[in-house]
Amino acid sequence: MTTSTKVAFIGVGKMGGAVARRLATGGYDVRVFDLNDAAVNDCVQVGAVAAASAIDAVAGADVVFTSLPLPEHVLSMWREVAPHLADSAIAVDVSTIDPATARTTAELLEGLGHGFVSCALGKTPAAAENGEIPLFVGGSAPALTQLQPLLDRIGQQTYNFGSPEGAAMFKLISNLIGMTNLAVLAEGYVLARSVDITPEMFAAALKDTGACSFQSDVRLPWIIDNDYTARFGVTLAAKDVRLAVDAAARTGIPTPVAAQGLAQLVSAIAHGYGDEDVIAMAKVLDPSSNLLNSEGAEHV
Amino acid sequence: MTTSTKVAFIGVGKMGGAVARRLATGGYDVRVFDLNDAAVNDCVQVGAVAAASAIDAVAGADVVFTSLPLPEHVLSMWREVAPHLADSAIAVDVSTIDPATARTTAELLEGLGHGFVSCALGKTPAAAENGEIPLFVGGSAPALTQLQPLLDRIGQQTYNFGSPEGAAMFKLISNLIGMTNLAVLAEGYVLARSVDITPEMFAAALKDTGACSFQSDVRLPWIIDNDYTARFGVTLAAKDVRLAVDAAARTGIPTPVAAQGLAQLVSAIAHGYGDEDVIAMAKVLDPSSNLLNSEGAEHV
Repeated sequence: MTTSTKVAFIGVGKMGGAVARRLATGGYDVRVFDLNDAAVNDCVQVGAVAAASAIDAVAGADVVFTSLPLPEHVLSMWREVAPHLADSAIAVDVSTIDPATARTTAELLEGLGHGFVSCALGKTPAAAENGEIPLFVGGSAPALTQLQPLLDRIGQQTYNFGSPEGAAMFKLISNLIGMTNLAVLAEGYVLARSVDITPEMFAAALKDTGACSFQSDVRLPWIIDNDYTARFGVTLAAKDVRLAVDAAARTGIPTPVAAQGLAQLVSAIAHGYGDEDVIAMAKVLDPSSNLLNSEGAEHV
Repeated sequence: MTTSTKVAFIGVGKMGGAVARRLATGGYDVRVFDLNDAAVNDCVQVGAVAAASAIDAVAGADVVFTSLPLPEHVLSMWREVAPHLADSAIAVDVSTIDPATARTTAELLEGLGHGFVSCALGKTPAAAENGEIPLFVGGSAPALTQLQPLLDRIGQQTYNFGSPEGAAMFKLISNLIGMTNLAVLAEGYVLARSVDITPEMFAAALKDTGACSFQSDVRLPWIIDNDYTARFGVTLAAKDVRLAVDAAARTGIPTPVAAQGLAQLVSAIAHGYGDEDVIAMAKVLDPSSNLLNSEGAEHV
């Protein structure tokens, strides 16, 4: 595939939009569709073309991407557009979905003669804008070979899990672990503040222990700064961990600690923090925010 | 203080023994006491002197260390030896204990005119043998100043939390977070194996996600190798997390995720893994060990 490849992109939210723009700025001919006009405009401004509908977007496309919030959206979208795909079109889903939906989607598209690839995206929208994300892929081997130039434009590193369900499950597992690490980090931080350990001392000493993690490196500074701007929102995180815990239960694997992590995300939504960053989990542990407010906590 | 300083060391198990040997090989005059003769001999072989009793050990010592399994041991030991301390002796506890016991011990010793320092030890016995551990300290400022040469011999970095209870709490928090990170890592690993993701792929891809941590860097390879040799035993870890969750409850801070992590450690003990490494938590999730055995799992 070359940059003359025609790409359709359905769903251009935070992650999907970043990937679509990455392809548009990489010289690909990209047609986008989303119910959110502002999201579409962000892509049009860097060279993408707005399609009138999902079916309009996929007409004549060599590669069709979906990036949608929930597994049920992904499956119903492919059911809608599948009859309208070009004969040799390759289908790629970059959403975070459950393994069963990844398998069902693959069977739907393979049944119609299309190659299907599940391509879960790692890291953040900011990293995705620069193509600095890992890709967790699985699916049709010939399709993956053809897609390689696009994948190289989208991501930094490709991990091939062999099947769509393997790629989908790995992405869910990584969020299951990461979000639960964050949940217990929040517990430890609020506990430290309750005995007047300063945020700075906590952060510095923690780096020297078995408690340090990506979450303590990246998200602890936001907790300390009381900066709840959503980079990864509570509602999205809760969806991912819910799918992970559910997939584990269906697979027969108990995930008691992650299930409690999920409960903390759900609690954060119940407290009205659904649109804030996942670090808002800490506020559930400290409803008065006395301990989270660095100034105030000195007087607790 | 110089290397002519007389040191008494009560409790020379894995961590305490490593610290006592570090002082003995650093030229300090070290007298050790432990109920375990083999542990005492490991210190005598590098120049320490065996004392007949705890009271014998502390006679004439400038600095007295305790390194004991449980908070109740620490407090009762200091109650026993306190009347026998030399007039200007400094008391140091390096055990992992709860903040309330650290406070009570400090008050007991300060009431008798002794400086008291809580000095929790980070990392592993292997690192402690080389003085490559962080020290989490708190207590009498003059005592800390006098102790600095010894602390520099024992550890690489000293973090001063201002009070014995602050130092004790920080150490508990670091284990609360670290062990819970490990518990959910085990859940993710067993889940990945259940869908035939290879150990190597899991480990490599995880490094590129928000799930990576000290635990995934250091302990995941042991899980993959089915190597349950105790570096940090389940029973000890359960004790630390139990103290942390209990201290949090007394402080009024909920720790729901860590409490579930504690339940997994207790489950591992109930399954008979108390003397194995903390990674044995993974076996509770996979009682047949089909998924943990890398060879066997290919056929699941």
